[in-house]
Amino acid sequence: MSKVITFGEIMLRLNPEGYRRIVQADRFEASYAGGEANVAVSLAQYGNDVSFVSAVPAHEVGQACVNSLRRYGVGTEFIVRAGDRLGIYYVEKGASQRSSKVIYDRAYSSFSMSKKDDYDWETIFADADWFHWTGITPALGGGIPEICLDACRAAKKMGLTVSCDLNYRKKLWTRERAGEVMSGLMPYVDVCIANEEDAADVFGIRAENTDVESGRLSKQGYVSVAEQLAGRFGCKKVAITLRSSVSATVNRWNGMLWADGNACFSREYEIHIVDRVGGGDSFGGALIHAIRKGMDQQAVIDYAVAASCLKHTIEQDYNLVSEAEVNALAEGGGSGRVQR
Amino acid sequence: MSKVITFGEIMLRLNPEGYRRIVQADRFEASYAGGEANVAVSLAQYGNDVSFVSAVPAHEVGQACVNSLRRYGVGTEFIVRAGDRLGIYYVEKGASQRSSKVIYDRAYSSFSMSKKDDYDWETIFADADWFHWTGITPALGGGIPEICLDACRAAKKMGLTVSCDLNYRKKLWTRERAGEVMSGLMPYVDVCIANEEDAADVFGIRAENTDVESGRLSKQGYVSVAEQLAGRFGCKKVAITLRSSVSATVNRWNGMLWADGNACFSREYEIHIVDRVGGGDSFGGALIHAIRKGMDQQAVIDYAVAASCLKHTIEQDYNLVSEAEVNALAEGGGSGRVQR
Amino acid sequence: MSKVITFGEIMLRLNPEGYRRIVQADRFEASYAGGEANVAVSLAQYGNDVSFVSAVPAHEVGQACVNSLRRYGVGTEFIVRAGDRLGIYYVEKGASQRSSKVIYDRAYSSFSMSKKDDYDWETIFADADWFHWTGITPALGGGIPEICLDACRAAKKMGLTVSCDLNYRKKLWTRERAGEVMSGLMPYVDVCIANEEDAADVFGIRAENTDVESGRLSKQGYVSVAEQLAGRFGCKKVAITLRSSVSATVNRWNGMLWADGNACFSREYEIHIVDRVGGGDSFGGALIHAIRKGMDQQAVIDYAVAASCLKHTIEQDYNLVSEAEVNALAEGGGSGRVQR
Amino acid sequence: MSKVITFGEIMLRLNPEGYRRIVQADRFEASYAGGEANVAVSLAQYGNDVSFVSAVPAHEVGQACVNSLRRYGVGTEFIVRAGDRLGIYYVEKGASQRSSKVIYDRAYSSFSMSKKDDYDWETIFADADWFHWTGITPALGGGIPEICLDACRAAKKMGLTVSCDLNYRKKLWTRERAGEVMSGLMPYVDVCIANEEDAADVFGIRAENTDVESGRLSKQGYVSVAEQLAGRFGCKKVAITLRSSVSATVNRWNGMLWADGNACFSREYEIHIVDRVGGGDSFGGALIHAIRKGMDQQAVIDYAVAASCLKHTIEQDYNLVSEAEVNALAEGGGSGRVQR
Amino acid sequence: MSKVITFGEIMLRLNPEGYRRIVQADRFEASYAGGEANVAVSLAQYGNDVSFVSAVPAHEVGQACVNSLRRYGVGTEFIVRAGDRLGIYYVEKGASQRSSKVIYDRAYSSFSMSKKDDYDWETIFADADWFHWTGITPALGGGIPEICLDACRAAKKMGLTVSCDLNYRKKLWTRERAGEVMSGLMPYVDVCIANEEDAADVFGIRAENTDVESGRLSKQGYVSVAEQLAGRFGCKKVAITLRSSVSATVNRWNGMLWADGNACFSREYEIHIVDRVGGGDSFGGALIHAIRKGMDQQAVIDYAVAASCLKHTIEQDYNLVSEAEVNALAEGGGSGRVQR
Amino acid sequence: MSKVITFGEIMLRLNPEGYRRIVQADRFEASYAGGEANVAVSLAQYGNDVSFVSAVPAHEVGQACVNSLRRYGVGTEFIVRAGDRLGIYYVEKGASQRSSKVIYDRAYSSFSMSKKDDYDWETIFADADWFHWTGITPALGGGIPEICLDACRAAKKMGLTVSCDLNYRKKLWTRERAGEVMSGLMPYVDVCIANEEDAADVFGIRAENTDVESGRLSKQGYVSVAEQLAGRFGCKKVAITLRSSVSATVNRWNGMLWADGNACFSREYEIHIVDRVGGGDSFGGALIHAIRKGMDQQAVIDYAVAASCLKHTIEQDYNLVSEAEVNALAEGGGSGRVQR
Repeated sequence: MSKVITFGEIMLRLNPEGYRRIVQADRFEASYAGGEANVAVSLAQYGNDVSFVSAVPAHEVGQACVNSLRRYGVGTEFIVRAGDRLGIYYVEKGASQRSSKVIYDRAYSSFSMSKKDDYDWETIFADADWFHWTGITPALGGGIPEICLDACRAAKKMGLTVSCDLNYRKKLWTRERAGEVMSGLMPYVDVCIANEEDAADVFGIRAENTDVESGRLSKQGYVSVAEQLAGRFGCKKVAITLRSSVSATVNRWNGMLWADGNACFSREYEIHIVDRVGGGDSFGGALIHAIRKGMDQQAVIDYAVAASCLKHTIEQDYNLVSEAEVNALAEGGGSGRVQR
Repeated sequence: MSKVITFGEIMLRLNPEGYRRIVQADRFEASYAGGEANVAVSLAQYGNDVSFVSAVPAHEVGQACVNSLRRYGVGTEFIVRAGDRLGIYYVEKGASQRSSKVIYDRAYSSFSMSKKDDYDWETIFADADWFHWTGITPALGGGIPEICLDACRAAKKMGLTVSCDLNYRKKLWTRERAGEVMSGLMPYVDVCIANEEDAADVFGIRAENTDVESGRLSKQGYVSVAEQLAGRFGCKKVAITLRSSVSATVNRWNGMLWADGNACFSREYEIHIVDRVGGGDSFGGALIHAIRKGMDQQAVIDYAVAASCLKHTIEQDYNLVSEAEVNALAEGGGSGRVQR
Repeated sequence: MSKVITFGEIMLRLNPEGYRRIVQADRFEASYAGGEANVAVSLAQYGNDVSFVSAVPAHEVGQACVNSLRRYGVGTEFIVRAGDRLGIYYVEKGASQRSSKVIYDRAYSSFSMSKKDDYDWETIFADADWFHWTGITPALGGGIPEICLDACRAAKKMGLTVSCDLNYRKKLWTRERAGEVMSGLMPYVDVCIANEEDAADVFGIRAENTDVESGRLSKQGYVSVAEQLAGRFGCKKVAITLRSSVSATVNRWNGMLWADGNACFSREYEIHIVDRVGGGDSFGGALIHAIRKGMDQQAVIDYAVAASCLKHTIEQDYNLVSEAEVNALAEGGGSGRVQR
Repeated sequence: MSKVITFGEIMLRLNPEGYRRIVQADRFEASYAGGEANVAVSLAQYGNDVSFVSAVPAHEVGQACVNSLRRYGVGTEFIVRAGDRLGIYYVEKGASQRSSKVIYDRAYSSFSMSKKDDYDWETIFADADWFHWTGITPALGGGIPEICLDACRAAKKMGLTVSCDLNYRKKLWTRERAGEVMSGLMPYVDVCIANEEDAADVFGIRAENTDVESGRLSKQGYVSVAEQLAGRFGCKKVAITLRSSVSATVNRWNGMLWADGNACFSREYEIHIVDRVGGGDSFGGALIHAIRKGMDQQAVIDYAVAASCLKHTIEQDYNLVSEAEVNALAEGGGSGRVQR
Repeated sequence: MSKVITFGEIMLRLNPEGYRRIVQADRFEASYAGGEANVAVSLAQYGNDVSFVSAVPAHEVGQACVNSLRRYGVGTEFIVRAGDRLGIYYVEKGASQRSSKVIYDRAYSSFSMSKKDDYDWETIFADADWFHWTGITPALGGGIPEICLDACRAAKKMGLTVSCDLNYRKKLWTRERAGEVMSGLMPYVDVCIANEEDAADVFGIRAENTDVESGRLSKQGYVSVAEQLAGRFGCKKVAITLRSSVSATVNRWNGMLWADGNACFSREYEIHIVDRVGGGDSFGGALIHAIRKGMDQQAVIDYAVAASCLKHTIEQDYNLVSEAEVNALAEGGGSGRVQR
Repeated sequence: MSKVITFGEIMLRLNPEGYRRIVQADRFEASYAGGEANVAVSLAQYGNDVSFVSAVPAHEVGQACVNSLRRYGVGTEFIVRAGDRLGIYYVEKGASQRSSKVIYDRAYSSFSMSKKDDYDWETIFADADWFHWTGITPALGGGIPEICLDACRAAKKMGLTVSCDLNYRKKLWTRERAGEVMSGLMPYVDVCIANEEDAADVFGIRAENTDVESGRLSKQGYVSVAEQLAGRFGCKKVAITLRSSVSATVNRWNGMLWADGNACFSREYEIHIVDRVGGGDSFGGALIHAIRKGMDQQAVIDYAVAASCLKHTIEQDYNLVSEAEVNALAEGGGSGRVQR
């Protein structure tokens, strides 16, 4: 079977134990994560051959990061050792009315300062049929947007399917800059993934009848967003996740997949959250798996939403669930009876 | 006051901390548990004189297991030191739509390979008035079903009340084998305990109008099951626990006690779960205590359900609550105001 | 800007990790807390200059206690080193139907045995404009009620505003003794803080149409309590917190501020609880901050209730939230979306 | 086989993890310990039937304390539930040039305030042949010295052997008070245990040619101390532990047993210390076991010193080693080769 | 570069934290280890392409085991999923005079019950030039000795170098059975690794002038053992590790490599031990690396002994040190100055 | 009493628990440290009024850093909130032959990018009599060397004593650049602190008869270094620490203070190391305290070396020992007998 390539930054994630705040912490749980790395781990969990492309420093922290990917079956042969630092992000888990908080310390990271020559896309894509990246990658600036464009061109030329999660991060770039850069990259994208706000933030594409604050958006509104994205950039599929945040403890979660003029919606899950960071990435990873496996459109969105529902019950970013577990939920489970 | 004897396997329980999955764990919380051991601990908590009969290896892990029982006041004078291994089970705590998972590694354990001669029932029952075991015990196979039969016969002969929790485990034996073996043992049982599925799994006894998947069963259905059990095997009392699993985080829980043609139902509790493993055992332990103490039928079921409701808020299998705490809940508490 | 002085006992708080019971614990989390110390930390968090007045033993545990206050910006220059022991309290976190439990071991503490001469109120109040204490302080007995009276007199003489949280603790004194002592102190109190039961316990002041057990009290009832307190003792403001305990996991929480014949109510929050100990203190601290900052009456009660809502999501007693976080919630937030 | 009774205080021991200081700790390891409780655990480890007599409060911390004794096989049937607090001591583990530090918070404990009527010595000693206590017990003052005298008288009358570890604690009483009280109790003591300084501190009995600071004492000096103790009080056996503290990390350890005019010395061990608190108690427990088992004099001191050498490698106070492990070391082991 | 294959059992290793004993543990650190797996990790650390061949159960604990190998770069493509249980071993870390203790619970493991057909040696060895196994593997009995013989034959036929660490375990088989089985396998072995006792235990080959208990053996004695092994079985190289156990805390460690009639000795290290389990395996892994890299004989033994010296300072079995770190020590380092 | 000002960078320190390597860590202990911050904490521990001047980001990690200083009594009123990141350093604790390892991730930190205008030295030094900085500060480059020069000039002008620890870090700057910059700053330095290699690295000042590798240097050699430093730059006092690294577990440690042509040496300590990071800083902090307190020259060096000896037994960088503890060791203690 052919291979998936994902490309982006991976960071050290530090979070206090449980619900402690950062100012209370005298120890941090350490894990490694990043949008595209998270997708790679999801794909490996479901049995796909997948390699993650990035750059990390040569020292022990960089090695620990590489090890975390190997541990869960992700290929690391294209990870460059260069630069001086692994980006870091701190996570403080919210509860009830207190939001989770993320502090980024990723500037000047090995990845964000990596060079065009660090990546030989012909070699990287040699055995691949799918290329995935997210909007966070070009948002890192420096030479990365251009590297991203290189990668997309090479992918297209070599016949890979390209997927992109818009993943707008206002701390990394402005809406204007995002719109400009992403508009140059989107024409290469076959499968576009977004949450309920990304299309508006990056491209000013808005659904009618939407009220994000209240967490409600008419179904028709999402279809409208998908059609506009497909219309403007030629994407073949557009997938949108829909989150209603009741509180930091309880969220509702569902999604839509639009393809060829047809939209399918998953059922909605009410989730007691263990850790929601990485929720969107787990959706993307499951979606790619389901499409590659040839599931039908409804099954694809059901699989992707069930997988990402389960992610909210898993500590840290990686969605460590099996295909069987996702299927069990997608097919109507979720009552949480003990498996023994 | 006279003594209770419980008989069965006790294992090392290993679970990752919090909601971590096994593949994420670099440490396990270690405790010791087993259906009949859990019942013994409940009985000791409420002030009963109780001894647990089993077999464990002579090494340090076996000793740690014995110590865990002594710590909570259970007599260990009849625990045999024999064989090579203490059975193990791994627990992964579920949340929301993700189920808890139990992996058993109990084959070839000291207990399951113990011999008839390891247990001298006349001595064991000398000061006892009650004997409790569960369907897990004969399910372990080997010589255990016969030892179980020996014990039941001796108990009857010596005038003890015998209680049994059906506790069907499909990984340990088939429905056919269970039905065959248990049918030979049930005639000795005075008090039969079961959950909403056991009677069907083991004896094919079904209530009418039941839909276990939806978590609903008409009250009349449970009465019908109890009456069939009593009718077929001569049990004097039948107690049934009723669990509605909303999710791995929230369950609804109540119970019924049938005796002499009369059925009493407890109120239903909606529970935010801390750890539900051992929930059924805590029901059994509290039920035996309440019956031995001479409570009236309604008080017995109220006590047993309140006790097992509280178990769901306690980490690990043992139900470490006091009689006063159970009474406070059974008598209408549960608002969770701070006790100070 | 002028300074706030709070006066009372600070203790070592020991609690098992997570939901473990004390009998299961082989380690305790250690922090330092007390009603008036908690208020001081809240005030420091919001940028107030505040010093805490107390007495602790000269040894390392006393020093660790002082350090915990310095860590969060509270002045400790008036803390006396005297006596032999730091009071202790054990907390066991409840869940669902199981209540949290607090065990006090505070008798004979350095503070409770401190002497009149340990505190030079003229010096302490030199730069201050506000003095806060709670009903726990005189409840400790010995010379403390008289010291408390001294402090109130000095505060009044030096022109400070005096606030008091009634904070009745039945384990520390009887209703009769409380009523007697507090009646002598209340005339010095400008701002009175109470929960839904304190006024009845201490002064026999009851609202009509109240049913505390059911957690419901008519709004008019609270206004009636406030007016009686103001009428009897001359308080200018009376603030009351209203807790409905659904379970140990879920509480509803709101509050009222009465001033000059006018009562304002906050909105009600439904809270998934992380740790509710210190909830009332966090209300007091936020209330004092809001009043000192000159917010209008409605804004004051909104701020105080939002702050104390957030406290329920913070581990341990200190309410480690910022003014910005409180404002965000008071102004309509609370959906718990990730901040990044 | 007959039973041993030990009598004294048991406390909650709190220590930071590893080498952390108290001011650095945000959690404490919790265990339960006390001179005579430690001896009881040693005796239970070696297979003796032993009960510990004391008083603890009725709350959960008191229960956890009782459970710690049951866990290791000590009888707790004579432990009184009374009073309000369990004494506490804080331990900070030293290393190299930094000493370990112990802070006591034991005043007003349930035990120290217990009454004569709490203990019915006739019942307690009914099945016993040995009574052990230490100098810490009468040092607690209040009614305890008299209770101690009662116990000694009853023990003698009922034919028990009485052993006492002098265990002088300067923070509990003065040398003068100790000398006075202990002089009244020593005539009941058959087996006297002491360290290299106790006899001097309590009775002014000094060896010639001693230099405690340098950790050296001539062998003849110890014999002289033993003979003086035996001569003055009529003890039949005197055992002395000899510690040379090279640093907080390395100690040298040996001991002497004098009996009937004859002195036997053990070999000396150089120990890398894990936790030395409880070292003396482990010597006493092993000594009593060895004497009761009828070992010859040299074997007794070899066993006691080997056992207490091993204690220094065990975390917390209880000496959790088996008779076989002690014998292996006493008979020439100690090279620390892996046992597998 | 060509590949190394190692073959054997891998287990779950459970050890209490720090120096706690098993009876004190309420949590275990979890890692995965086994003689040949440890060697594979060493080889991967030094940059070798290496795959580990074994069998583990299909459940989550088996997967976690596989993940631990992937994490450190070991190929797992030939690990069979079969059987029901992963073997377990418990480790209790010793200190000073108290020995470390290992308890095995490995009977009936997936590996020990694996079948001839589970392993296709032609495929496994296709890209390999080296095959390593240890005496533990055939000691597991059942079909394993025959599988081992198959593997050796295939390896020889396909031109691989075969290395074997004698690794005698008296709990797994008798000296007689070991001698018999190993004698049939040794003729395939090119490089034989042993500790100071193995040759005597398995083959009765003894050096003159040896006194293992005292930890001393004349250099000539080791040469004699090596020559006898080479003479009897035709090994080309014999490497022997020499451990002097001063205590469980301090060991002395060196080694010898005999080849073609010539013996080279390393320098001796005095080691403060962090964790010595896996010490011998780390020697084997480093030795194979050094030989494959073409180092000269003295450099090989220096490298192997330095690497295994460092292992004693690493927690758990895997020797997570780099080639550069080993070289730095082998070339004269070891003063432990901070690297910054 | 007047105040001390220290100036430099403070970082987040992350280290795995115990002896785990970074690649094994799934959690890090978090503390905050830096050369001049460590000195400030030492001074506060001994009762000095001290403020630390630095820059940290405005977010929660920056606040946690400030809190760590307040916790131990250091003034933080001059710490600027600016920039985006707190520098980080990772520490891996070595043992025996394995060195500790430090990985810096401090580039682009708030402090290193701070501006001249961030520090108003006239205000900062208003109440101060002593200014301390180390060679790490100018080594950070950017505008810092010039800020450092500003500070030195202002300090001199305002009559403060200036002390500097040379603290050469080869990863931060070259020997040439260090020599150049430091030569411009040294003329302002009254008290120069160095370790056995700094003077050679920075200024090429070498003692005769030295052999750093072997850890030996003649006493006369150190005097020669001190005299050259004093001669070239006009320092009034030169203090040198002398470390002999036996292994990562055991170091020997002493020091020399030269003043006015006279050199005093302390006694040498052999130390079992708990954590040696911050050892040099603890020497500097104690030295400044001892000089400010007016101790005589021999007492100063004895105090500084005893204090820094104790630091090696304290986890993390801050030397949390009291003046009394230092005096006890300096006056001849160190046998590590338990303090109780």
